[in-house]
Amino acid sequence: MEAVCKIRFIEASENSMINAYIFRTLPLIVLLAAAATCATAQTKPVPGWSLDTLDQLRQLQHAALDDDYAYHRLAHLTDNIGPRATGSPQAAAAVDYVADEMRKLGLDVTLEKVTVPRWVRGEERAELVGYPGQVPSTTQRVVVTALGAPGVATAPEGITAEIVVANSFGELAAMPREKVAGKIVVFNEHYDRRMEQSGFAFDAYNQAVEYRVEGRAAAARQGAVAMLVRSVGGAEFRLPHAGETDYFNHANIPAAAVTAEDADLMARLSAQGPVRLHLLLTSQMLPGAESYNVIADLKGSEHPEQVVIVSGHLDSWDLGTGAIDDGAGVVVAMATAHLVKQLHLQPKRTIRVVAWMSEEPGLLGGRAYGKEHAADIANHFAGIETDSGAGHPMGIYVTGDESLTKVLQPVADVLQTSGAGILRATNESGPDLIPLNVRGMPAFSPIQDTRKYFDYHHTAADTLDKVDLQELRENSAVVSVLAYALATMTQELPRKPLPLPDWLK
Amino acid sequence: MEAVCKIRFIEASENSMINAYIFRTLPLIVLLAAAATCATAQTKPVPGWSLDTLDQLRQLQHAALDDDYAYHRLAHLTDNIGPRATGSPQAAAAVDYVADEMRKLGLDVTLEKVTVPRWVRGEERAELVGYPGQVPSTTQRVVVTALGAPGVATAPEGITAEIVVANSFGELAAMPREKVAGKIVVFNEHYDRRMEQSGFAFDAYNQAVEYRVEGRAAAARQGAVAMLVRSVGGAEFRLPHAGETDYFNHANIPAAAVTAEDADLMARLSAQGPVRLHLLLTSQMLPGAESYNVIADLKGSEHPEQVVIVSGHLDSWDLGTGAIDDGAGVVVAMATAHLVKQLHLQPKRTIRVVAWMSEEPGLLGGRAYGKEHAADIANHFAGIETDSGAGHPMGIYVTGDESLTKVLQPVADVLQTSGAGILRATNESGPDLIPLNVRGMPAFSPIQDTRKYFDYHHTAADTLDKVDLQELRENSAVVSVLAYALATMTQELPRKPLPLPDWLK
Repeated sequence: MEAVCKIRFIEASENSMINAYIFRTLPLIVLLAAAATCATAQTKPVPGWSLDTLDQLRQLQHAALDDDYAYHRLAHLTDNIGPRATGSPQAAAAVDYVADEMRKLGLDVTLEKVTVPRWVRGEERAELVGYPGQVPSTTQRVVVTALGAPGVATAPEGITAEIVVANSFGELAAMPREKVAGKIVVFNEHYDRRMEQSGFAFDAYNQAVEYRVEGRAAAARQGAVAMLVRSVGGAEFRLPHAGETDYFNHANIPAAAVTAEDADLMARLSAQGPVRLHLLLTSQMLPGAESYNVIADLKGSEHPEQVVIVSGHLDSWDLGTGAIDDGAGVVVAMATAHLVKQLHLQPKRTIRVVAWMSEEPGLLGGRAYGKEHAADIANHFAGIETDSGAGHPMGIYVTGDESLTKVLQPVADVLQTSGAGILRATNESGPDLIPLNVRGMPAFSPIQDTRKYFDYHHTAADTLDKVDLQELRENSAVVSVLAYALATMTQELPRKPLPLPDWLK
Repeated sequence: MEAVCKIRFIEASENSMINAYIFRTLPLIVLLAAAATCATAQTKPVPGWSLDTLDQLRQLQHAALDDDYAYHRLAHLTDNIGPRATGSPQAAAAVDYVADEMRKLGLDVTLEKVTVPRWVRGEERAELVGYPGQVPSTTQRVVVTALGAPGVATAPEGITAEIVVANSFGELAAMPREKVAGKIVVFNEHYDRRMEQSGFAFDAYNQAVEYRVEGRAAAARQGAVAMLVRSVGGAEFRLPHAGETDYFNHANIPAAAVTAEDADLMARLSAQGPVRLHLLLTSQMLPGAESYNVIADLKGSEHPEQVVIVSGHLDSWDLGTGAIDDGAGVVVAMATAHLVKQLHLQPKRTIRVVAWMSEEPGLLGGRAYGKEHAADIANHFAGIETDSGAGHPMGIYVTGDESLTKVLQPVADVLQTSGAGILRATNESGPDLIPLNVRGMPAFSPIQDTRKYFDYHHTAADTLDKVDLQELRENSAVVSVLAYALATMTQELPRKPLPLPDWLK
């Protein structure tokens, strides 16, 4: 117990001057205050929370910070099973693996069917075959990766066409159709690194990813024969970032992501004169497959019908092994069940571990579950999803009624002692929880350090080494403490259903 | 002139606490001292250096810090010409380009023949085909890049064999031959990032690169059928680092670099049980080609027969476009001639711009020049080579007699005002200058910030965007000031010939 009762200075490598100031001037005051808070936390009753429950939360936190369960499961998912693309044998093996591991813990496991597409990448190659200053009989390689699923292949011999570089949708729309028709559009929207590094990684992502998601349709409307998009994310290692494009529109022209370096090269050469590119993508859509959300229940003692979901998504893109996206989320959810069992704790409500299938293409598992369980929404007490990697967690994002943050303050006070005491309201829940959240279920996610997340997101470099053991443990601490608190608290949570958006009807 | 006469605090992002301390406590003293130094530098005679010469050095420094010549040439070499592998059409085009640009400046250009190998990469693919926990009917991709030149191809259908992971030469040598024979050796020596980040990047490189250079022969001696080496350099983006292996031994088994991530994966899986790998490398050695060192002389007014070499190497590896290795070195040398001409300065000795050919495989251009000009070594007054990228320069490395640093202090005093005032003796000259340096010619290189150099070195990500315009200008300032000082100084430089090493005989 002692270990979690000390004040822990958050390591802020970017902020050493501020830290230096704090360390020099405030240590005595802070330590005295810490000692006082700590003593209080262990003895003073908190309205609505029993001393026993608060003590159990601290036990979970303490155990999680020294536990290897999540890391070992992540190593198996990534190293032994490997990439887990929707519909692949590896995704199927991952379903069996998670189900088996949950059964080993004594949970009730159900597999709920999700019909998924199976898209297979195939060959992908591009090269500049004509450009200003070109050395005769040479070409230059452009590093691409096909966008999926569904993806559209080129002709077997590839496409050769002039490129048109556009820095925005507006710039493309302003071009006369004859300037674009028959050409390959290259969207060159830059991912905003300063925004990311300032703590707004998802804002940076969202404003750039528009081009990956909507770019194919926009290019097709102007008669383009293919669309290339500058990779969304880190831009310094000639690494293409895969992802979904145009899932519902079926604009039916091939699309791929190029690395930031190649987008820059094409933009610079285009400014000098016409540039021609050869593009080959041989991806295939195979027949849809049956797959599953893995549902594993650790039954509640008082309200077994009420569930608290703790989850991540099991499928990944195919280039890397999906360690940060989203193996980490799945194993942190699994670790919650493991830790509760290990400490012989007994939640009042059911803790439901969910490994979602096919989040990447189409959010299919989340939608299917939302539809299937819509009638039972009142029994979905709350849900947690981790889907932003495994960076140091600083607290909890809360999506739902504005009074939720106040109700959960005692949980944040416990987590504060391991550096994760922020409670922040946000409009966006974890993706797979959206169908439940809009129907009224309060949703939560860890607030994580995401400064490196989009360096690796959807790339070949999303591998086990990107996850730090201690940070993964910190995430397990946040998620298990929060899940157990939600499953055991005596108050009801306020609920705030929203009108169902069109895409969920 | 004012601009170069102000004190410039070196930006040390890793050292903000120290900077903060300096800024808080010392500004007045420092500024007063700076004002004093600055006034002194402009008026007080320095023994052995005329006031005119010192003024010309400051003019060059000032002009370089605002000049785009080098960057534009680098853009052409990398964007338009592209990768410049020894013996390739692009390398030949680069020779013509540099020669033409130097002729445009009015220099006397000679092309000196170098016979070079032509190695063409071909296909390269590897996958794990058997390993513990493998999902039936799946494999896992291993990211490789063939080592050259000369490189050895696999059979056309590739090699499939079990792997043996060795963390050191000693570990491999201690294995019984039957444990290694018929297998693929994977050397897993880790590049020491902390050493690199502490300012010892080349030490980190040298201790890891041994495995790339010597690993093939070591593996072959134990009967291995192929050798893989963990990439030497940055390890976070699944990026393989190419390079030379075993240039003279011809161990005759295929060799490739794997990414750090893949080396880690193989090490982890091997610890669980046997791992089998399929490796395909279709590289080819084509007949040797004639190529050239580009030699461009800006004739000296008093001692035209005495030369000061200013240089970089023109060839690059084929994966990237050779911006930091070593386009930057070549264009900084070219910029020296441009700046001297632009300012209508007249060096007393000849400034000889050299763009070396085939440094990467075999140091062939440097060797050929050394042999060719051995009889004329006394007229090689000094030489400069830039071959560590284009990071912020902090001073000058000096290779030769120990008194050289003292003689050149007045030059360092000028460069100090733009943050490059260190003079540091070192045993290693720029690679292409070794044949001249051991024969007695004093050799110099800029001391550069190399904390990112080995992230990109020999990778596909060595592209134009990795060079910062202002830092490139700073390098031009150091090299042009030093070159002009050497070409104009009135003293002789002490010379220190060494016994010729075997590889230069």
